[in-house]
Amino acid sequence: MQLIDGNAIAASIIEELTTEVGTLSGKKPVVAFIRVGEDPASVSYVRKKEKTAERIGIESRLTLLPESITSEELFAQIDILNADPDVNGILIQAPLPKHINETATFNRVLPGKDVDGFNTVNIGKLCQEDSSGFVACTPAGIVQLIKRSGIETEGKHVVVLGRSQIVGKPAALLMMQKACPGNATVTVCHSRTADLPNITRQADVLIAAIGRANFVTADMVKDGVNIIDVGINRVEDANKKSGYRLIGDVEFATVSAKATHITPVPGGVGPMTVAMLMHNTLRAFKASQANQG
Amino acid sequence: MQLIDGNAIAASIIEELTTEVGTLSGKKPVVAFIRVGEDPASVSYVRKKEKTAERIGIESRLTLLPESITSEELFAQIDILNADPDVNGILIQAPLPKHINETATFNRVLPGKDVDGFNTVNIGKLCQEDSSGFVACTPAGIVQLIKRSGIETEGKHVVVLGRSQIVGKPAALLMMQKACPGNATVTVCHSRTADLPNITRQADVLIAAIGRANFVTADMVKDGVNIIDVGINRVEDANKKSGYRLIGDVEFATVSAKATHITPVPGGVGPMTVAMLMHNTLRAFKASQANQG
Repeated sequence: MQLIDGNAIAASIIEELTTEVGTLSGKKPVVAFIRVGEDPASVSYVRKKEKTAERIGIESRLTLLPESITSEELFAQIDILNADPDVNGILIQAPLPKHINETATFNRVLPGKDVDGFNTVNIGKLCQEDSSGFVACTPAGIVQLIKRSGIETEGKHVVVLGRSQIVGKPAALLMMQKACPGNATVTVCHSRTADLPNITRQADVLIAAIGRANFVTADMVKDGVNIIDVGINRVEDANKKSGYRLIGDVEFATVSAKATHITPVPGGVGPMTVAMLMHNTLRAFKASQANQG
Repeated sequence: MQLIDGNAIAASIIEELTTEVGTLSGKKPVVAFIRVGEDPASVSYVRKKEKTAERIGIESRLTLLPESITSEELFAQIDILNADPDVNGILIQAPLPKHINETATFNRVLPGKDVDGFNTVNIGKLCQEDSSGFVACTPAGIVQLIKRSGIETEGKHVVVLGRSQIVGKPAALLMMQKACPGNATVTVCHSRTADLPNITRQADVLIAAIGRANFVTADMVKDGVNIIDVGINRVEDANKKSGYRLIGDVEFATVSAKATHITPVPGGVGPMTVAMLMHNTLRAFKASQANQG
């Protein structure tokens, strides 16, 4: 069994991006973050993104808005960033307050600055295999984990557990596209799937994104399976200062014994998302430079 | 075995649309067709669409353009129709001349007038399960055939053979969405799939869209399968005046003996596309009226 070290792979990507940004003369890429309210998790995520951007040499700008902001005011802020030619990428930290429509907000960002890949146009481009679009950071990170671990997908059976817009469906579309990784036979399962173990046992690669702790057990996979565990579930743990620990959708102890490759939680898919956000930002920057050239 | 009569189902839909259009007071829906060149198949398809529109009470307008037209000139024509508040739907008959980029052309049509469902925004909306978008006519027709034949998909295994942008992928996305029909476990197979019969034999519903005559044989399906055959393949036939006949991707004679439901070719999926185009046009009309109200 080989552990897929998401921290190490993310660090390699950040290193590559740092090298590439270092070669840029003149303008540097700029990513703008919008954070609404003071949710501690959001504060921490945005800080982590700022630090990674700084490490790479990407300039970041932070717009802080109050929880009470209206959609119109939020959209006006997005429009300012859309119109600013120096801003290459825009990330609106989720979750947003309940009175604000997240889909409409993500769609307000220009597709060419939507480094989060949540805009309808970018999702459509993924479906159309138009590589000019941005792929959402979690599924893009999954592709990199698979690629950089040398896991073959061509002609293989990839089973995706979960059909969310943000992970399951884009991961499925990426795995079926004419690319490497890709060219896989892809099955999407979910809560309504009948006889799920019969499906998951066929998986050469199992991408678990169902959001249930320890859902995938050893009897549900075949020997030699490759596991990408996207789940991040909190379970109570009196031994931890925080009172909880994070575990995946896959029962690691038993499933890892049958797996060829497996991601840990934490330290698997998680660290990849920030790296892919920076990757998308650099791509947005290069596209904007090419358009001006 | 029950034959799924696409002609009869399409006729019911056209009947329903005729009734609904008949109740409209004032403005009627308008669909605009653009045909480039004189390809005989395109001439015939557009004529069929005009006739069906007329039957329903939808006004159609035809723009004929020469094969030699440039992209810029074609786009200018699309822009005129986009800007015309009386035009609810725009259909650009494919195939276009080789010097014109089809994707760029389809994307020139405003998403709200894209009754063909080929615009990137509408494909993205399908992936996001945003029902305000237009679904391409062939996959939308497949959904109606399944629905109106009483074929259950919830929790069932739907296997889609083919991963095209126009049929395979949207059909897969429709079958996995939280809807009825939908809520299926969905597998997408294609030319690279290893041990394809092992996958297709699991299908409760098999949607064949691979474009190879008689590709699916009886040994590749299980007893009780439901078959939607999207293939329209020409094979030579000296007994026909035209010199050819049309057959599907499924070997009808042998597979139908094992099937619960099966579409014939021709007379299955084919007739549905025009009906769904009209359905989309009426929806576009109603949306435009609601926006003005």
